[in-house]
Amino acid sequence: MTQSIQSMLQTHPLATQSPFDLTALTECLDACFECEQICSSCADACLGEGEHLAHMVHCIRLNLDCADICSATGRVLLRQTQPDMSVIRAQLQACLAACNACGDECTYHAKNMRMQHCEVCAASCRRCEAACQIMLDRLAA
Amino acid sequence: MTQSIQSMLQTHPLATQSPFDLTALTECLDACFECEQICSSCADACLGEGEHLAHMVHCIRLNLDCADICSATGRVLLRQTQPDMSVIRAQLQACLAACNACGDECTYHAKNMRMQHCEVCAASCRRCEAACQIMLDRLAA
Amino acid sequence: MTQSIQSMLQTHPLATQSPFDLTALTECLDACFECEQICSSCADACLGEGEHLAHMVHCIRLNLDCADICSATGRVLLRQTQPDMSVIRAQLQACLAACNACGDECTYHAKNMRMQHCEVCAASCRRCEAACQIMLDRLAA
Amino acid sequence: MTQSIQSMLQTHPLATQSPFDLTALTECLDACFECEQICSSCADACLGEGEHLAHMVHCIRLNLDCADICSATGRVLLRQTQPDMSVIRAQLQACLAACNACGDECTYHAKNMRMQHCEVCAASCRRCEAACQIMLDRLAA
Repeated sequence: MTQSIQSMLQTHPLATQSPFDLTALTECLDACFECEQICSSCADACLGEGEHLAHMVHCIRLNLDCADICSATGRVLLRQTQPDMSVIRAQLQACLAACNACGDECTYHAKNMRMQHCEVCAASCRRCEAACQIMLDRLAA
Repeated sequence: MTQSIQSMLQTHPLATQSPFDLTALTECLDACFECEQICSSCADACLGEGEHLAHMVHCIRLNLDCADICSATGRVLLRQTQPDMSVIRAQLQACLAACNACGDECTYHAKNMRMQHCEVCAASCRRCEAACQIMLDRLAA
Repeated sequence: MTQSIQSMLQTHPLATQSPFDLTALTECLDACFECEQICSSCADACLGEGEHLAHMVHCIRLNLDCADICSATGRVLLRQTQPDMSVIRAQLQACLAACNACGDECTYHAKNMRMQHCEVCAASCRRCEAACQIMLDRLAA
Repeated sequence: MTQSIQSMLQTHPLATQSPFDLTALTECLDACFECEQICSSCADACLGEGEHLAHMVHCIRLNLDCADICSATGRVLLRQTQPDMSVIRAQLQACLAACNACGDECTYHAKNMRMQHCEVCAASCRRCEAACQIMLDRLAA
């Protein structure tokens, strides 16, 4: 994915006026969209857990929240034309909170119930949380 | 819409355990989903403005951001099963920021260019901003 | 909601050139967006069903599919600027299929397990299925 | 992205019962999600085209439709728990129609106006259209 997104950011008519660090932006976009997909998939994998399903309710709920929030964050960050920094900052904060909560829950299931899909999902949430933090740090600098 | 959403909230198996004020929640859900739709429609109406199109670029961009953020906020708020308050608070803050920015831009076009779709959209953004603020106040109390 | 959407459709700069019957369009938009919300809520209500949860897996899955498809259908139909009829027709067909499948599943749970949230959801799916069929009939005429 | 999605599909508790060809599914998921992102980005790049903006209205509209439809298609396809084939087939058809329309429009701008972001987007639409066709062919077989 990164390759195509990079091509789009580079061929954007306003590319030279971007207020963003292109490397941090590309990493954050990639992390947001990946996390949306992985969380959507983890909700579905949890739903297929049969006898363990009753333990996965909180995880499914946080997966769905995190997928919706990562999707909105990715779409807002992707737009390079006349961005509003107060909106972007607030949405990055929300994404950070969602990835943190979902990452904690998935880590628990990965460790205590050895659920491999939750292990993959926890890694994706941690990566996205870190990428949002780096973006926020850059925007504040 | 409110009628059906209310029916869903009332027939939810965990309705009696909800940490939310049902009246404030229903109003906020209605405001978020309406604002998503009105902003999506305003972006498209701006796109059809012909000779005035060049002036509408910032408005279209904020409309699209606000629609995506209101959608995520509505979906997260709608879920009553095991909510995470830190995620909900952060997403409400992001929704408030998006509605504020988009409401300001639409108010400008409503006043200075007499654009009626922007007037309808500004009112929807203001209503959603206020509803998110009330939810945040209730959650903090 | 219908009131605001109608205001947007009426103040759209291309309103007089719309290829759509405004009454059928408003009804279909309202039905799609309501069905998105009700299905998202039904998935969450099913997730809160405790001891019955194991029976709700297929319903949750179809709820999530139907919500995503109704959302895309509503957003595409809402846009009045230079619509592509082949895209609209195909997406209406997909929405009809999703509402039909989800409506059947929810009807089953409403009847056999007396789940009231599934009864509300089934009614919303049937209404959306009918509205999509009317739109398809009008577009074919 | 493909790597993580593959890990999720492989660790899904129902992986061994999947009715899908895993290679075709992974390719189609990757194509749908990429196309959603590239189309969202192309709409924004078109919006930043300044003096050429008036020529980009149809492209922006189709980009937004295609992004919404690819997103819904990707999310539905991603779910492996108890899929409904009639819903999946109809949504794949809609995705195929959207990618075809958007791919044609972007190809026009790439050739006649040398817009590089439209060239990247046209390639992404063609890839997604082909991947949906292969999925439809496999499901019919």
